[in-house]
Amino acid sequence: MSHYLDHAATTPMRRCAVEALATHAGLLNPGGQYASGREARRVLEESREQIAELLGADPIEVIFTASGTEGDNIAIQGLYAASPLRRVVSTPIEHSAVRETISHLPGVESELLPLDEGGHVSELSLLDEPAALATSMWANNETGAIQPVAEIAARAAAAGTPVHIDAVQVVGKLPVDFHALGATTLAASAHKFGGPRGVGVLLARRSPAPSAVLFGGGQERGIRPGTSNVAGAAATAAALAEASAEMEAEEARLRALRERLREGILARVSDVEVHTAEPALPTHLHLSFPGAVGDSLIMLLDAAGVEASTGSACSQGVNRASHVLEAMGVSLESARGALRLTLGRTTTQADIDAVLGVLPRVVERARAAGV
Amino acid sequence: MSHYLDHAATTPMRRCAVEALATHAGLLNPGGQYASGREARRVLEESREQIAELLGADPIEVIFTASGTEGDNIAIQGLYAASPLRRVVSTPIEHSAVRETISHLPGVESELLPLDEGGHVSELSLLDEPAALATSMWANNETGAIQPVAEIAARAAAAGTPVHIDAVQVVGKLPVDFHALGATTLAASAHKFGGPRGVGVLLARRSPAPSAVLFGGGQERGIRPGTSNVAGAAATAAALAEASAEMEAEEARLRALRERLREGILARVSDVEVHTAEPALPTHLHLSFPGAVGDSLIMLLDAAGVEASTGSACSQGVNRASHVLEAMGVSLESARGALRLTLGRTTTQADIDAVLGVLPRVVERARAAGV
Ligand SMILES: Cc1ncc(COP(=O)(O)O)c(C=O)c1O
Ligand SMILES: Cc1ncc(COP(=O)(O)O)c(C=O)c1O
Repeated sequence: MSHYLDHAATTPMRRCAVEALATHAGLLNPGGQYASGREARRVLEESREQIAELLGADPIEVIFTASGTEGDNIAIQGLYAASPLRRVVSTPIEHSAVRETISHLPGVESELLPLDEGGHVSELSLLDEPAALATSMWANNETGAIQPVAEIAARAAAAGTPVHIDAVQVVGKLPVDFHALGATTLAASAHKFGGPRGVGVLLARRSPAPSAVLFGGGQERGIRPGTSNVAGAAATAAALAEASAEMEAEEARLRALRERLREGILARVSDVEVHTAEPALPTHLHLSFPGAVGDSLIMLLDAAGVEASTGSACSQGVNRASHVLEAMGVSLESARGALRLTLGRTTTQADIDAVLGVLPRVVERARAAGV
Repeated sequence: MSHYLDHAATTPMRRCAVEALATHAGLLNPGGQYASGREARRVLEESREQIAELLGADPIEVIFTASGTEGDNIAIQGLYAASPLRRVVSTPIEHSAVRETISHLPGVESELLPLDEGGHVSELSLLDEPAALATSMWANNETGAIQPVAEIAARAAAAGTPVHIDAVQVVGKLPVDFHALGATTLAASAHKFGGPRGVGVLLARRSPAPSAVLFGGGQERGIRPGTSNVAGAAATAAALAEASAEMEAEEARLRALRERLREGILARVSDVEVHTAEPALPTHLHLSFPGAVGDSLIMLLDAAGVEASTGSACSQGVNRASHVLEAMGVSLESARGALRLTLGRTTTQADIDAVLGVLPRVVERARAAGV
């Protein structure tokens, strides 16, 4: 059995989600005007209500999507298309689902909020001038740094600017209250909190609503058409309910494990840089080992039974220097030696011990191999 | 137990698909550079290869999406964006995932191929002039009418026009050979052939490739980014393999059942119009009962334990006169009395008998209620 420390990439499905999938696998088309259609519709709408309640939104604001990526795309492309303005304000550390989407908006004038060394947005005055939209991740997927999203939303709202929040790393880990936050849209991805892969949730206020990006049968307020994945919605609701119930206890448990991991590494390995600075998710520990190459660390860890990532590549086999570390002012040499260890529901002290047991030798060998 | 005759809307998941979902529920991120990532990647790529083989495509041409709607949108928006031309040729009977998408293309000059009374495209000369793309459904979702897609693809190709085929109603029911067909892209939806809801397949040639419509981590050739739904892909491959193995036998069985249904209705109910004309899918029977309202027929059938649809509304609670019947020259009065009965894998003689048992009285009562 290997030790999985890449929970920020994806985390195992919760048993309750697997069971919900199985229970509802027989449900048919919620658009059907007959008994089995009504039953499917009931489960879909109950799932929607449960998610709305857990995230502080109205049921009509819950749009089922297929992924965090799709939610980010619909919100950003859709809010931009609905606005006469071309100015878009975001941060230098967004996930590619946001960065790439913004860079492809026709005629966009993109501006980035400044960042401090800890990877937190440090200055908001760019938000005082109206824009087509402002967007920020709630927590960064590499470092775990929590951004001042309530301040960002309030400041943008004061200028009349719609705000999208990429909460993919946060939903299921920290409390989310959509109405209190004051954002226009918010994206989540079920597989990040123990729900199924292939389901996302986009929260979207009635107004301003994103213009449709995908067109079809009018499901999900016309914002996300296509035959509904009812079993997926039910499994997502079940996973989010369980994550919410465990949240406080898990946060404390994981924070303690993460601290032991951090302290253990600092005690055992020399010349380590820690890039995860508070406020941060309890699950993330992002480090650099200057003189080593991240890919070598990952390979050597894998051979030693520890599964981790450099944190910077989201798609198969692709590996670039992290734009997040670059924006934080980390040197290229340090950035090349990056390692992201992320904890989750199934993580135990044994996993931490395993990492601490093998990491010193792994770093030594990676450094000996050179850069 | 009610009798389900709305298989064209969605059909129950096959046991093999449910089992594949369960077997692979534990798979993690195929982008991970470690043992569990490689295992997920292996299952994803084997599913891709299996689907490619079954549909006459190369593995690299198989793009996993979340629905038929998404595949249609990506192909049509993406091929249009990749072309300098603004002319788009389609048919008057496309699904809303195609019609609505075309109508929202910026600057589009849309032209429609003419249709005969049986609901088949009858004349192809519009394809002789170059266009940004041509698109046709392989079989219509309301009537089941099979379109001359090979001729459409060849004629468009001769003019250098990329061709998208919406094969959502066909994949799993009739043999599909993507390379022999000669189309540029082809969309399918897993839940229509006993796969899971929330998974689609877009076949896309390497060139001309659709421009990206959704942006993110670069998965699926960059055409459809987002963390992969590996279990969904495996369940889709399993369902398609089983559907393909049973195809010939099922086609004959369902055609015989459908004929008995058609003949039984014509023998028992007066003043019936049949809108399903050959060549048509073996699964579809589309009728009108002038003097009745389709919604009343559906409600009364539901009360009598038969689940069917008017065929014209794809989203919840929405009901418009069918654009398909209108394009076929059916009078408005007839179109209002439309009923679509669609058969599938679980349909038996008992379902046909049930419909034949209740339909005469249902039509009588619906006609008495007036229009
Ligand atoms: C911050 C953030 N946004 C968006 C995404 C995209 O989510 P998905 O891969 O589920 O589409 C991810 C996942 O990697 C993420 O971490
Ligand atoms: C011909 C056709 N195209 C596209 C679609 C859309 O498929 P999905 O609802 O799976 O997105 C359907 C399903 O109703 C269809 O019948």
